[in-house]
Amino acid sequence: MNFSRPIIFVTNDDGYQARGIHVLIEEMRKIGTVIAIAPRVGRSGMSHAITFSEPLRLRKVESAEHFEFYEFSGTPVDCVKMGLDKFFKTTIKPDLLVSGINHGSNASICSIYSGTVSAAREGAINGVPSIAFSLTDFHPDADFEPYRTHIQTIARAVIEKNTLPENVFLNVNFPKVENAEDLREIRVCRQTKGVWIEEFDRRTDPQNVDYFWLMGHFDNYEPNAEDSDEYCLKQKHTAVVPLRIETTDNEALVKLQKIIQ
Amino acid sequence: MNFSRPIIFVTNDDGYQARGIHVLIEEMRKIGTVIAIAPRVGRSGMSHAITFSEPLRLRKVESAEHFEFYEFSGTPVDCVKMGLDKFFKTTIKPDLLVSGINHGSNASICSIYSGTVSAAREGAINGVPSIAFSLTDFHPDADFEPYRTHIQTIARAVIEKNTLPENVFLNVNFPKVENAEDLREIRVCRQTKGVWIEEFDRRTDPQNVDYFWLMGHFDNYEPNAEDSDEYCLKQKHTAVVPLRIETTDNEALVKLQKIIQ
Repeated sequence: MNFSRPIIFVTNDDGYQARGIHVLIEEMRKIGTVIAIAPRVGRSGMSHAITFSEPLRLRKVESAEHFEFYEFSGTPVDCVKMGLDKFFKTTIKPDLLVSGINHGSNASICSIYSGTVSAAREGAINGVPSIAFSLTDFHPDADFEPYRTHIQTIARAVIEKNTLPENVFLNVNFPKVENAEDLREIRVCRQTKGVWIEEFDRRTDPQNVDYFWLMGHFDNYEPNAEDSDEYCLKQKHTAVVPLRIETTDNEALVKLQKIIQ
Repeated sequence: MNFSRPIIFVTNDDGYQARGIHVLIEEMRKIGTVIAIAPRVGRSGMSHAITFSEPLRLRKVESAEHFEFYEFSGTPVDCVKMGLDKFFKTTIKPDLLVSGINHGSNASICSIYSGTVSAAREGAINGVPSIAFSLTDFHPDADFEPYRTHIQTIARAVIEKNTLPENVFLNVNFPKVENAEDLREIRVCRQTKGVWIEEFDRRTDPQNVDYFWLMGHFDNYEPNAEDSDEYCLKQKHTAVVPLRIETTDNEALVKLQKIIQ
């Protein structure tokens, strides 16, 4: 491993065979040495889950000059923890961690359910500048070509300009566009306020026992907020939201100290 | 179901058979009507994970006056989603959601890995006043008796005094004490800054293939910060941390708008 080049750690939550991570690896190999560890299978919706009650398996799937690629049986956050433990020490860290490109939007409140975003959060917790990339298109054969320039711009801004404050990481979402020319600007914006409304789909199995599928739809509380990520995406801008890992609400803290004692 | 009493939704991540949730249900039945849905098996470390790629099963395990108790095959957050969909509508919500009592600490950064805390976060996302309770003792037979008074004080402060701002929920941790007299005050404090340092334990199976166990230790960045939850717990205080669901970092947003474009 050549440590004179930037070291970039790559992961995702759609699994090591997903198209999105291969595009992201290609882009990162233009910048530095790439170590990739991705889940063996799709682990969408795993959020910040970790695996400590079952053993985990790691297998190398590809290697080349300045490049190693592994699949791991754990969650996306497990992949980050394995990468940091196997290849780095607490004093030597990757110069950048990128996660994705996710097949499907992780804007607004999806950022808390997403394994892709959580992998970036885990990077930030460990002091690594981290970015999650997602495309608002769930299709396994989604076209990632239009977004290569924006990926380069954002990744280089983080790695070369050292733009990220400690404990902050980026949640980047790309709008679905037909052609690269339809993609507009990069907009730094805030997370849209909204909620997923669940409606479980109840069915009956051949043994006459009920089972449920989790379904839902997104309720955007502020569809016209121009500084929100959902709005930027609708306008065909790339939405970049800086998210924090520290979540104590200081205002509530002061208020509650007077009430609960 | 009698809607003239407060309706309290109870869940956890240790599973419906864990001792902690039974103590919490007992305390909540003193306050109102209780609907409990807990995971079928222990789902510790599941964070905010949701299940949409496999069907889910729900089974009633107990019912009495003003009380229904179900086990569910999903994650803790799935339990909350099922509860809100099955028993409530978006216009009628529980008056309180409580999660726990977790067997083991969820202070500091553990709050992001914990299924118990995520269940409370999911409640807050859905506009329900929500509290996660955890005891800094992993033992399945942990003694929860010393904490009953603090549970009542905190739950009643939230439900009767309407203390929680929108989008904020409480992460409550109890120190391990030998006797109720050793338990000190309730302290509203902030999340301690720190990180779990991972060291995977590498072993070889009988087929001579390597496998790994996730292990680690907590590195407290500020062991002497008197306003941090870890410090309060060491002093045998109950630590109450208000956490927010909105995580956009506004300071970074303004800074990044000038750099990334």
